[in-house]
Amino acid sequence: MSDASFTHLDPLGRARMVDVTPKEPTHRRAVARCKVFMTPETTVTIANREIKKGDVLSVARVAGIQAAKRTSDMIPLCHPLLVGSVSLNFDIGDDHVAVEATVETVERTGVEMEAMHACSVAALTIYDMCKSADRSMVIGDLTLWEKTGGRSGTYRRDADHASSSGGSTSAGAVSEDTSNIASSVTNVVES
Amino acid sequence: MSDASFTHLDPLGRARMVDVTPKEPTHRRAVARCKVFMTPETTVTIANREIKKGDVLSVARVAGIQAAKRTSDMIPLCHPLLVGSVSLNFDIGDDHVAVEATVETVERTGVEMEAMHACSVAALTIYDMCKSADRSMVIGDLTLWEKTGGRSGTYRRDADHASSSGGSTSAGAVSEDTSNIASSVTNVVES
Amino acid sequence: MSDASFTHLDPLGRARMVDVTPKEPTHRRAVARCKVFMTPETTVTIANREIKKGDVLSVARVAGIQAAKRTSDMIPLCHPLLVGSVSLNFDIGDDHVAVEATVETVERTGVEMEAMHACSVAALTIYDMCKSADRSMVIGDLTLWEKTGGRSGTYRRDADHASSSGGSTSAGAVSEDTSNIASSVTNVVES
Amino acid sequence: MSDASFTHLDPLGRARMVDVTPKEPTHRRAVARCKVFMTPETTVTIANREIKKGDVLSVARVAGIQAAKRTSDMIPLCHPLLVGSVSLNFDIGDDHVAVEATVETVERTGVEMEAMHACSVAALTIYDMCKSADRSMVIGDLTLWEKTGGRSGTYRRDADHASSSGGSTSAGAVSEDTSNIASSVTNVVES
Amino acid sequence: MSDASFTHLDPLGRARMVDVTPKEPTHRRAVARCKVFMTPETTVTIANREIKKGDVLSVARVAGIQAAKRTSDMIPLCHPLLVGSVSLNFDIGDDHVAVEATVETVERTGVEMEAMHACSVAALTIYDMCKSADRSMVIGDLTLWEKTGGRSGTYRRDADHASSSGGSTSAGAVSEDTSNIASSVTNVVES
Amino acid sequence: MSDASFTHLDPLGRARMVDVTPKEPTHRRAVARCKVFMTPETTVTIANREIKKGDVLSVARVAGIQAAKRTSDMIPLCHPLLVGSVSLNFDIGDDHVAVEATVETVERTGVEMEAMHACSVAALTIYDMCKSADRSMVIGDLTLWEKTGGRSGTYRRDADHASSSGGSTSAGAVSEDTSNIASSVTNVVES
Repeated sequence: MSDASFTHLDPLGRARMVDVTPKEPTHRRAVARCKVFMTPETTVTIANREIKKGDVLSVARVAGIQAAKRTSDMIPLCHPLLVGSVSLNFDIGDDHVAVEATVETVERTGVEMEAMHACSVAALTIYDMCKSADRSMVIGDLTLWEKTGGRSGTYRRDADHASSSGGSTSAGAVSEDTSNIASSVTNVVES
Repeated sequence: MSDASFTHLDPLGRARMVDVTPKEPTHRRAVARCKVFMTPETTVTIANREIKKGDVLSVARVAGIQAAKRTSDMIPLCHPLLVGSVSLNFDIGDDHVAVEATVETVERTGVEMEAMHACSVAALTIYDMCKSADRSMVIGDLTLWEKTGGRSGTYRRDADHASSSGGSTSAGAVSEDTSNIASSVTNVVES
Repeated sequence: MSDASFTHLDPLGRARMVDVTPKEPTHRRAVARCKVFMTPETTVTIANREIKKGDVLSVARVAGIQAAKRTSDMIPLCHPLLVGSVSLNFDIGDDHVAVEATVETVERTGVEMEAMHACSVAALTIYDMCKSADRSMVIGDLTLWEKTGGRSGTYRRDADHASSSGGSTSAGAVSEDTSNIASSVTNVVES
Repeated sequence: MSDASFTHLDPLGRARMVDVTPKEPTHRRAVARCKVFMTPETTVTIANREIKKGDVLSVARVAGIQAAKRTSDMIPLCHPLLVGSVSLNFDIGDDHVAVEATVETVERTGVEMEAMHACSVAALTIYDMCKSADRSMVIGDLTLWEKTGGRSGTYRRDADHASSSGGSTSAGAVSEDTSNIASSVTNVVES
Repeated sequence: MSDASFTHLDPLGRARMVDVTPKEPTHRRAVARCKVFMTPETTVTIANREIKKGDVLSVARVAGIQAAKRTSDMIPLCHPLLVGSVSLNFDIGDDHVAVEATVETVERTGVEMEAMHACSVAALTIYDMCKSADRSMVIGDLTLWEKTGGRSGTYRRDADHASSSGGSTSAGAVSEDTSNIASSVTNVVES
Repeated sequence: MSDASFTHLDPLGRARMVDVTPKEPTHRRAVARCKVFMTPETTVTIANREIKKGDVLSVARVAGIQAAKRTSDMIPLCHPLLVGSVSLNFDIGDDHVAVEATVETVERTGVEMEAMHACSVAALTIYDMCKSADRSMVIGDLTLWEKTGGRSGTYRRDADHASSSGGSTSAGAVSEDTSNIASSVTNVVES
């Protein structure tokens, strides 16, 4: 991997926003995921409230959607773009809440950062709303899950990529949850 | 843990911003940490650039400082407050960059979310600037490390708390890095 | 009423932000209300969803809370301040949804605009989420309901004030709804 | 009207930003109106200042234009878009100031919310600047007046729609003012 | 001048927001000034419009006031604070428009950057509104004119300071205009 | 020059955002420049730090890039657009730091204001970071240097335009620095 890979740095190493004007707008889609690890008691309380009121995940969902729209405000070298759709899904596990953000658009640049940012802000919102009950929560496994569109083509995270990202066992844990999150559409745990 | 712990929800379970007007402003401090896991090649490239230009971590530092100031814009039920100081520190490990954010203020509410948000946005900025080289990076171990001031007193994350947060082995990994981050002040890897 | 009443205009009629630095911070509270008029079919649909999911009013509630925090960003001569608490309540009537926003703080200026802005944005969010079903909705009766604290003392809207505001029959309608909104805490239609 | 009309809610009732990526950008235009009801003394004072300095309506006009640009920041499920033109017009009546906002663009989604938001923030700015003289003002009759472009075609509010919106007599009042607002271009009351 | 003067840089040269929590809030005031140089034809056109409508300077005034409130959003290491009053004044010269911004507050840090930022954005707004007539305008002489309050005491710019700022003759020109700007309160050129 | 040149004012002199919807998106580019005049001691200190850490100009670069993205938030009648690339360059002279901002995009309107705003905020950031050492700094010579694309074609500032902008000698000084800034790419003073 040469230095030339760092497209955010010019040949002199100074920060810049790379020029995307020669690119044509195309359809882009990105999926990011993370987990908020917490005590089983906290997940139960969220789940029970969820069934009755849904407010913790409801607020986190709105926060994630709004965050996706304002990604370039917060990430300095990220290009501004207009997101075309954003959705957030949650899955309550025994000791964590899994967060998945999907962003789509028709633009000159990809929406990876928008999906990552939406995931991150939704997780922080869950942390904020539950921290009076459990201050030891940990947000982890935040990663790009899938990306389509654009010159660099399709990317899908798999077990091999996961294990190459530094031996983090938690990265492996993400893969194992795929079926759970997918099934959340059917099980409707969070709604 | 009773439902009463969820101070962001009123007795009917609806979201609200809890009333902090009866509190007196006091000195508050919070430290949050996270890690951006990546391939060893990517850490080497950041480190080498860092020695020459420092731009990746420089930009992430500015992003984290600005994020701390705008936390209540992004986290819906977080109280607005005026941060009094913000600092970001980085430590480059073999397979990750560790991020530490410290925020202080004199206000009616704590600055945990400001420190968590600063950490998270600094990590996303590192991800954004390196993603053309390594798309499989994972942001993890984002957690509150220390908090002082306020009615609930001092909180310091320790090994026991870590293990209670859902059996996540990566949470334990954070503890092991304490000495590295502390020594970064001396080693100045990132400056 | 002399021109001197327009404290936002200096003696030459130019806009300025009036100086509040000589004031001491005191506890302030303001309540604002408005209504989103719509067809009975739309209120039924919101109510039914509300019972099942609560999402329309949930999203409106988050929007109102976030708007309260950013009032001075949108209203040019409004002083910036830190809101200490914000709550939004809704009451579904036959042909409208009533919105009530309560804001409290300890600051040098009142929070009337924060309450009015929160109400207005919550109502616009309801409009936005229901406009595909009913484009003829009307937002009305947006007014300050109550204000306490500060040099000008307590203000409470009453029938006399209402009728003095230009003979608008809709202003009178607000008064008639007081009992409904108050009872919403008991009836919990929206949660 | 079936639930399917609520396009902001997915089949499970959770909030999402609907996908607009399959749509082609087309020319869109929307007009929204509202009124700030106040005592005749206040309208006279605004009018007199208006003739001399124009500051109240001048500031409200700028506030409305800036609000149109930031609509998706405030309304959670509203798509971000780039407004192509914004204009605000005012008409001073005996007991109210009428506000009209017109927004145009070439985008994948309509600009109804931008026009509604601009109207609302301009009205709140008038309220803010006059509230020291008259705290009992009421903002009402905020509604979409006209919309062209997009798949759903042209919409024009008329007397029938107005009367169907809940029997609000003030909604009818809007219709009666059409000629006044139109004539404001000729009479130039506000400039 | 030692490196220790750069209080925004820590001993290792990394950016940080300096800690202001040990300071007590005190009354602060700052005045900044700048000029927008333009052709005499453009100043005449602004002046004539100004007499009739006042819109160019009216819009610039609102822009400057809003900019003062959001200074810490734009200047990375600037502390957030709540401005207590902001006023903008203009003086139309033969070949320029002079801009003066005054900001006051009761806070832990000074408001120099708020005054400088307000001046700068008001000037850019004048540039934006006149650039279709005169693209060669130059914004210059932006400087802190006066500052009171805070540990470092009172600062007033004088001829000596001006000449020490690099031999710029335009800096000297600012001094010569003092009387003009002061007299603008009496002459009311801009209102 | 007739009044018709002020395209931001409608025929009645009221502020409006001019309609750009009939225009086709085309490639646009703008370059703006300014200088921060300061004592020679301050430039030396920046330069020495620059060689070691680069933080003053690094932070200013990030601030300028973020400012370019948010120009329409701050300048009321400026159209929102999506910047495609932004770069900031600096050149340290004996008694000043020169700032150059280049912005490119494919949009319906030009990016002059984005380049001017980026320049201005980068200069204010330098001022903010050095003001504890030198309060008498002056920001000047902020002007559009070059603009290509759009119906009005290419504009390049030259000596004639400079001298026509009001006899400001500092405007002439900008021209003389052209070679220095150009050579900064070769000399890399700032990186």
